Amino acid sequence: MNESTEQKPDAAPGTRRPGGRTARTRAAVRDAVLTGLAAHGYPGLTVEYVAEHSGVHKTTLYRRWGGLEGLVADALALAGEDSWSPPDTGSLEGDLRALAHEVSDAFADPGAAAAPTAFVGAAFQSPRAAEALHAFYVERFSRCEVVVTRAVERGDAPAGTDAAAVVRAVSAPLFLRLFITREPVDGAVADQAAQATLAAVRAGAFTAPTQ
Amino acid sequence: MNESTEQKPDAAPGTRRPGGRTARTRAAVRDAVLTGLAAHGYPGLTVEYVAEHSGVHKTTLYRRWGGLEGLVADALALAGEDSWSPPDTGSLEGDLRALAHEVSDAFADPGAAAAPTAFVGAAFQSPRAAEALHAFYVERFSRCEVVVTRAVERGDAPAGTDAAAVVRAVSAPLFLRLFITREPVDGAVADQAAQATLAAVRAGAFTAPTQ
Repeated sequence: MNESTEQKPDAAPGTRRPGGRTARTRAAVRDAVLTGLAAHGYPGLTVEYVAEHSGVHKTTLYRRWGGLEGLVADALALAGEDSWSPPDTGSLEGDLRALAHEVSDAFADPGAAAAPTAFVGAAFQSPRAAEALHAFYVERFSRCEVVVTRAVERGDAPAGTDAAAVVRAVSAPLFLRLFITREPVDGAVADQAAQATLAAVRAGAFTAPTQ
Repeated sequence: MNESTEQKPDAAPGTRRPGGRTARTRAAVRDAVLTGLAAHGYPGLTVEYVAEHSGVHKTTLYRRWGGLEGLVADALALAGEDSWSPPDTGSLEGDLRALAHEVSDAFADPGAAAAPTAFVGAAFQSPRAAEALHAFYVERFSRCEVVVTRAVERGDAPAGTDAAAVVRAVSAPLFLRLFITREPVDGAVADQAAQATLAAVRAGAFTAPTQ
């Protein structure tokens, strides 16, 4: 246990002194959660493991995060606080292609894919992880919507295009293969997802209200 | 334990006397696995539960199925042996719409959705469940490909359309929302998935080899 990372009992995760001790503790705990998820998956993760790998005492973890579900949810919340922004290649085709390739590239390396995969798996077991995963993706996809907004402004997509649906459509075939059908994903699959989504946007399939 | 469902040690699941005692035992075990998955999810399922609810002795379950992973994998294999066939409405639009609605309808009822959801979740924990899930969906999607073949024959889709990609594309946004982003799925989402896929097919996005 590393006492220097200890916090007062009333400190909720990440609520004070950003960049200070609270933030460092939270990041250390998050790193331990990610390492544990990557190594053992959610079923193999324990509060003891997180304590050992973060240097934060188990009683502190229970007091501030409530337990394993809270630790996983907070690691996801922290992952959502990054400064990632979607590609801006100058064309809708380029942006959709780049978005699709970010997904296929991210999961091509089993080491890099392990923790995100474990988050998706954890949501099947933990309602709190499911809520955190939902919040993460809703926020992430809303960041992507600018790709469609810019395309509409450029005349590259019809006015009234449902940006939320478009950014989900381009990722969906990749996630289907990764987590449902468990089929390989590569650049060709990413390109096909981008081409199909682009064609549907241009045909106005994401503007017309369906019957 | 129900001795009448007992098999000789050399009997692999489902390998003899179809419709007879072996098939009945396998179906009883499958039903118990589905009930257990729906009630408790994969993490809560035990061989003891399956024994109790199937009337097949635990030692028989271990001998013939190897354990929990084998039980889940065999229940999925048996689910794939149904006589389901894809819709045949006379148009590609109608067929894609019906396929998408089958998914949204199937998961609209939490009771009916529980076991299939547990199968998808089990694949994150059990390599044998992941293999069985892969086999199930590859076979299921290959059954759907006739929808595209018929459309090409009718002139309703371009020759050379990648049928495997089309049938995945129409389901993918629904599965994304159900199991990754955990957003609601309804008929409107299904219609939009069908419209987008149809537009992409008609534009030839599923025929052109991508760069």
